[in-house]
Amino acid sequence: MSNLSYLFEAKSLAVIGASNNPTKYGNIILSNILEGGYKGELYPINPLRKEILGIKCYPSLSSLAGKVELAVVIVKNHLVPEVLEEAGKTGIKAAVVISGGFSEAGQSELQDKVLKVVKKYDIRLLGPNCQGINYTPNKMCASWPVIKQEGKMAVISQSGSIGAELGKQAENEGLGVSAVISLGNKIDVNELDLLEYFDRDKNTSATALYLEAVSNGQAFLQTASRLKKPVVILKPGKTSAGQKAANTHTNSVTGKREVFDGVCKQYGFINADSLEELYDCTKLLSMTKNPQNKRLQIISSSGGGGVLACDAIVESGMQLAAVSEERRRKLRAKYPAHFTVGNPFDLTGDANPELYKEIILELSKEDGIDIFLPIVGDPIEGVAAAFLEARKNIKQDLVVCFFGGAEVQVKETLEMHRNGLPVFPTPERAVNAIAKMFQRKIRP
Amino acid sequence: MSNLSYLFEAKSLAVIGASNNPTKYGNIILSNILEGGYKGELYPINPLRKEILGIKCYPSLSSLAGKVELAVVIVKNHLVPEVLEEAGKTGIKAAVVISGGFSEAGQSELQDKVLKVVKKYDIRLLGPNCQGINYTPNKMCASWPVIKQEGKMAVISQSGSIGAELGKQAENEGLGVSAVISLGNKIDVNELDLLEYFDRDKNTSATALYLEAVSNGQAFLQTASRLKKPVVILKPGKTSAGQKAANTHTNSVTGKREVFDGVCKQYGFINADSLEELYDCTKLLSMTKNPQNKRLQIISSSGGGGVLACDAIVESGMQLAAVSEERRRKLRAKYPAHFTVGNPFDLTGDANPELYKEIILELSKEDGIDIFLPIVGDPIEGVAAAFLEARKNIKQDLVVCFFGGAEVQVKETLEMHRNGLPVFPTPERAVNAIAKMFQRKIRP
Repeated sequence: MSNLSYLFEAKSLAVIGASNNPTKYGNIILSNILEGGYKGELYPINPLRKEILGIKCYPSLSSLAGKVELAVVIVKNHLVPEVLEEAGKTGIKAAVVISGGFSEAGQSELQDKVLKVVKKYDIRLLGPNCQGINYTPNKMCASWPVIKQEGKMAVISQSGSIGAELGKQAENEGLGVSAVISLGNKIDVNELDLLEYFDRDKNTSATALYLEAVSNGQAFLQTASRLKKPVVILKPGKTSAGQKAANTHTNSVTGKREVFDGVCKQYGFINADSLEELYDCTKLLSMTKNPQNKRLQIISSSGGGGVLACDAIVESGMQLAAVSEERRRKLRAKYPAHFTVGNPFDLTGDANPELYKEIILELSKEDGIDIFLPIVGDPIEGVAAAFLEARKNIKQDLVVCFFGGAEVQVKETLEMHRNGLPVFPTPERAVNAIAKMFQRKIRP
Repeated sequence: MSNLSYLFEAKSLAVIGASNNPTKYGNIILSNILEGGYKGELYPINPLRKEILGIKCYPSLSSLAGKVELAVVIVKNHLVPEVLEEAGKTGIKAAVVISGGFSEAGQSELQDKVLKVVKKYDIRLLGPNCQGINYTPNKMCASWPVIKQEGKMAVISQSGSIGAELGKQAENEGLGVSAVISLGNKIDVNELDLLEYFDRDKNTSATALYLEAVSNGQAFLQTASRLKKPVVILKPGKTSAGQKAANTHTNSVTGKREVFDGVCKQYGFINADSLEELYDCTKLLSMTKNPQNKRLQIISSSGGGGVLACDAIVESGMQLAAVSEERRRKLRAKYPAHFTVGNPFDLTGDANPELYKEIILELSKEDGIDIFLPIVGDPIEGVAAAFLEARKNIKQDLVVCFFGGAEVQVKETLEMHRNGLPVFPTPERAVNAIAKMFQRKIRP
């Protein structure tokens, strides 16, 4: 097990700077680790307390020599080097430094000191100045907010807020996450270490990366060429104002936009244009097969939804599938005259779960369809079960759009997401995420 | 009071075709009218029942001669003409026909019969083949789903599903709506009647219109030239596939795209590009003042959020406001060194409600700012109250972006929306809605 693995898999964890003041991060993080259900040994460290949040508190790491694999550090910036020195002596493998006040605040010397200690003891360090790490398979939420639901999407972010948003949204929608990692100043562990880790991690299917600056261009290219699983990147700084703001935020140079765009294209990263797109694309890629072609078949209860999807399909470079004349005749004979047998296949207000399933199964025999896009525009109970059942029996991809369904929509969407079937709230977002997926270089 | 007004203001309402079967629209609509809290007289009509959902049921409209102003009709298509004939004789003013099976199903003759009756008795008719009408100031939800919260946004839609989605989203977000109207086949009441109505309606500030086909081009131009309040239109059919699908859906010709785009430009309609944009722009316009210039000032707790907003501002043709050197020095002296005094103004993790308010009030003395865009990227309790208080004391517009705030974000966003302050969930969506607002021809 590499020392990096202890960031994720640690069986024992010390919170250095644990606090009993609920407004302090030393309290919030301890509380979130508890609420997350961490199964390993947990040691709050604070020389002034006997107990915090009902658990025994220890005066120092030394008193626990050898017992702790991972330290989460939330102490004043100038204390960080000595805390890590002590940790190194006790044989700690990895550390997450939440504390800020380093290079981002003009304290580069202090940051260099930290790095020196880390190298001396071969500690893998995440941060400093970060929002922590949450790895759900280990039930280890050393971060905020609390996100407990396990899922297949990993989030790596150079902004704590953006990481938190993506993770919480995934939980609210019933997808969950494998991890949410805040990069902070990335003096040791950087985006490449983490991308490689998630590429091998059996709990992760796709990774979202919000990145303001690449740590090392040459190394980025080398890592990029090795990755097998899909990665979606949002890299701001498309405009000079955005670049300037990014440089101020993370005190680093964003690099030439064209170079980055070229790298994405060459290595098949999805290059997201907005926060929403970063989420939508990673969600889709964490759940779908790998369609080889772009022919979509719409089956809708909402005429308007079908129309919007058509526009989006053509505008995004996807294609409307064409159904054979023979199949069309067969379906035409089977269903009421007011159904539109075509693409969109319009079920009108008569749509029900059984109908959607029946038509998907029948059309799945066609060669000309790569992806089914059922659109549900009404509160139709039971569609989740019908789509999940249909999916078992077809070779095509299945991506759902659901709107206009009020409370029923919320319930059915959760059920689909929990079972790995992606659902989008508008036709345009569904189609856009599908189209973006084809930026990925499909690997055998 | 024009007969059109009875669609909204009716003091008595008959549901013709009321049913006690909860899967039938004759039951769903009656139930929704009750749940919506309609204060007028309510008369279910069904010759086979004595009582439905606990209210007395009547055999026919004739037995209520003169008592009913508005009829909601949910009977078999071939019965609609005679039902309206009877309604006309009893002096009904307006009708909403939910029933389908007219021109959209090849039954144009039947539709012509309906139109003839309507003209004969001077009834204003919404539909047929529509999802009904919901006008919250009259607590009249003759539609589905149930939406009760009053708000300033009116929704007119040629797709029932899309209308339902927009209305429900507005309620879920705490904005509410003044109305959700489904146009259906619009044989009598069309989008122009409704746009004019909402333009005069004191309960409405902005209207969202989903429109597949303009009923009458010439009349559209005349109405457009008279409207004072903002209108946001999503008109699909940007591609030939979308046009074809729209023609099939509503059996009408969508018209040349360039002509429509030109009309929007000339008359200052906001031309939305997606369902999400239709919602975002109408929401913003139902709540904002009318900024004359495009200079935005970002104040953020999230570095990443500020960076994304910068890119979006420049890319959408908006401008980053510049603060005077004097004010900048003053602020620089007042706040900690790790705050970035600029645009974005970055408060870092130290952000709190008081700080946001203080800085907005100080910067509001500048001449060079038209719109404040505070970005909250953390679970900061109390920002709603702080922003609402700040808004009272500034001449600039205020548009909030909130993400990464988990449960706190939901609560604070609801509070802001209920008090008419717009909140968007990503920097890009906030900036895009603001930029789109400038498509509006500002009228004195």
